[in-house]
Amino acid sequence: MSTIARHQSPEADPRVKAVFDDIRATRKSDFINNMWHYLAFDADLLEKTWAEVKTVMATPSALDPLVKEMLYIAVSVTNGCGYCAHSHTAAAKAKGMTDEQHADLLRVISLAAKTNQLATALQVPVDPAFDTDHRP
Amino acid sequence: MSTIARHQSPEADPRVKAVFDDIRATRKSDFINNMWHYLAFDADLLEKTWAEVKTVMATPSALDPLVKEMLYIAVSVTNGCGYCAHSHTAAAKAKGMTDEQHADLLRVISLAAKTNQLATALQVPVDPAFDTDHRP
Amino acid sequence: MSTIARHQSPEADPRVKAVFDDIRATRKSDFINNMWHYLAFDADLLEKTWAEVKTVMATPSALDPLVKEMLYIAVSVTNGCGYCAHSHTAAAKAKGMTDEQHADLLRVISLAAKTNQLATALQVPVDPAFDTDHRP
Amino acid sequence: MSTIARHQSPEADPRVKAVFDDIRATRKSDFINNMWHYLAFDADLLEKTWAEVKTVMATPSALDPLVKEMLYIAVSVTNGCGYCAHSHTAAAKAKGMTDEQHADLLRVISLAAKTNQLATALQVPVDPAFDTDHRP
Amino acid sequence: MSTIARHQSPEADPRVKAVFDDIRATRKSDFINNMWHYLAFDADLLEKTWAEVKTVMATPSALDPLVKEMLYIAVSVTNGCGYCAHSHTAAAKAKGMTDEQHADLLRVISLAAKTNQLATALQVPVDPAFDTDHRP
Amino acid sequence: MSTIARHQSPEADPRVKAVFDDIRATRKSDFINNMWHYLAFDADLLEKTWAEVKTVMATPSALDPLVKEMLYIAVSVTNGCGYCAHSHTAAAKAKGMTDEQHADLLRVISLAAKTNQLATALQVPVDPAFDTDHRP
Repeated sequence: MSTIARHQSPEADPRVKAVFDDIRATRKSDFINNMWHYLAFDADLLEKTWAEVKTVMATPSALDPLVKEMLYIAVSVTNGCGYCAHSHTAAAKAKGMTDEQHADLLRVISLAAKTNQLATALQVPVDPAFDTDHRP
Repeated sequence: MSTIARHQSPEADPRVKAVFDDIRATRKSDFINNMWHYLAFDADLLEKTWAEVKTVMATPSALDPLVKEMLYIAVSVTNGCGYCAHSHTAAAKAKGMTDEQHADLLRVISLAAKTNQLATALQVPVDPAFDTDHRP
Repeated sequence: MSTIARHQSPEADPRVKAVFDDIRATRKSDFINNMWHYLAFDADLLEKTWAEVKTVMATPSALDPLVKEMLYIAVSVTNGCGYCAHSHTAAAKAKGMTDEQHADLLRVISLAAKTNQLATALQVPVDPAFDTDHRP
Repeated sequence: MSTIARHQSPEADPRVKAVFDDIRATRKSDFINNMWHYLAFDADLLEKTWAEVKTVMATPSALDPLVKEMLYIAVSVTNGCGYCAHSHTAAAKAKGMTDEQHADLLRVISLAAKTNQLATALQVPVDPAFDTDHRP
Repeated sequence: MSTIARHQSPEADPRVKAVFDDIRATRKSDFINNMWHYLAFDADLLEKTWAEVKTVMATPSALDPLVKEMLYIAVSVTNGCGYCAHSHTAAAKAKGMTDEQHADLLRVISLAAKTNQLATALQVPVDPAFDTDHRP
Repeated sequence: MSTIARHQSPEADPRVKAVFDDIRATRKSDFINNMWHYLAFDADLLEKTWAEVKTVMATPSALDPLVKEMLYIAVSVTNGCGYCAHSHTAAAKAKGMTDEQHADLLRVISLAAKTNQLATALQVPVDPAFDTDHRP
């Protein structure tokens, strides 16, 4: 169930078709997941979102592609986004995430949420040593 | 400003002293950041929290130590925990995070938050292809 | 699936019936969405929640009714409330939200979530110029 | 630093004065914390917020006053509201929260945040046994 | 739908069987809810999560067991964890939560979320009176 | 206090200078708020963030500029981003937000957070009437 109707033939719009073609080419797969089908209700939103995802996630950069997927999972889970937890866990597995790494990822993100609560509940003051602006 | 008073001589309690000693030994540093000083108001809470942090973050595991710090930052930032953003960014830098990696981390976690909003706003249905329970 | 049982004949309780009658009259529709059916498990909670929603959302005020629905969507999406994203997107469309406005809404709330992450990750200090208390 | 200027003489407005008088009488104290001073920029918002807080928090009900303060802390910490963590921890202490109860509160709310992450990361399906609508 | 496959015979692993046995013994029930079935994909994660849940939630402590369940609900709802809202509401009912207490719980946690927004929107400064570190 | 050092002479980098010049020209003001000074640690991040903010917020679109600022506030407050609450409240005031509109904004976003909690706590099922995919 979604808040907008899924387009039945989104690729009738050449701008949508161009994005879908690029998704298929980039991922070397015919599968286009629902996120892009729903974003297709607005060609500009689709184009820009895909362009940013492609640049950040599918272009070699200072971080390893699998690390980037795990960071994406960390944020998505913390935000409670079920769709995103699904799609990025699938992507991480496709990039080689092992069960051991998956369990380790869960250990870290659940521990982080736990100590976030403690620090916020206690309103722990930031140590002066962490102040990057006033370092000599 | 905090919600409980910081202990003036926490190490007078031998259970607290034992934890602080282990923090110093594990980190090879005399610096004990505020988080532990404030948790010291309850020795049991301090002991168990440190034990879990040490096991998850300071023990070799399936994920690289720097990757774990970056995942910690991702969760902490998404939860809006200022103290945690400070302490784990400092820890990530101490473990060698470069400016390029830092910028890349910010790119990924801010993009994730952006697409989380889109997926949630559209209530995009999970693709059957992501259903791990019903795979053949 | 819900955490409490939906009342089968909620209007047997005259206090519930009075609220349901007012919802129908205010909205000029016989449709009463699930939120109110479930809140009906406690007449006081139902009465006060409806009274506030009616006052804030259905009474002319300084903001346009459609703007108020879009603000409601913005908060609901950020909180990850699926039910609320559904009900308030439907309400916004009923009040005339166009596809162009919908796409623009998505652009703004997803960009906001993105820059929220950046500001929190960097712990950007508030500019003195924003301090309303110390303005001359 | 705040987003609106604090009123210098809020009680010059008789509606504000009436609320402030009721806060003092209800709490049996002359101290009026900043929250109410800032809400005073709009008398209607001040009146309705105080009326609800008084009804829910300061009126005998099915839950103990200290339990209600601890629930308030749980939500405030999870939402990352520093002001609210401060004011409701102070209120809970004023209502008798001991250090042991405080530590126990922290254990529960930090564990909850931790297992929330696990359940969301795994997208654990709701057990049919929890479905209240379909119970015989 | 979940992000990992549910184990078909998790108790074939003696470590998992030992945890499941302890869950059954602690709860005096044969029912093991999905959370534990899914965590069973990693025996260490299962063991440590159950050990902590058992210690915090099923061991007599400074807070009443029902109060702890309600605090758990407060955090889970604020984090938008549907599974957790279900499982802990069921647990609270099993521990005797009445409809009146349930409604009161909802009143408090929804009011808290409301005033959290007001305090954050106004960026209300913390009153010096709340500063525990600088009290004489 | 921030997690990275603020650049002392960011405009020594021509890419940063170009962005700052465009911010000044777009806003017709010499004031460049801290967000941009801190993002300047990575020219690419600065350029792309500003380009998106300029396109979404400073270009005529289907929504009114003030409405867009209020939506930005709604998300920022819900995410607990103090810096963002400050900067976008200041921006909304600069675009003409009156005290009456401000109070109305607070009424809507605090009510939304309140009913989000209720819907999530009750796990209210989405009404079939809201299902856009299955409408005839």
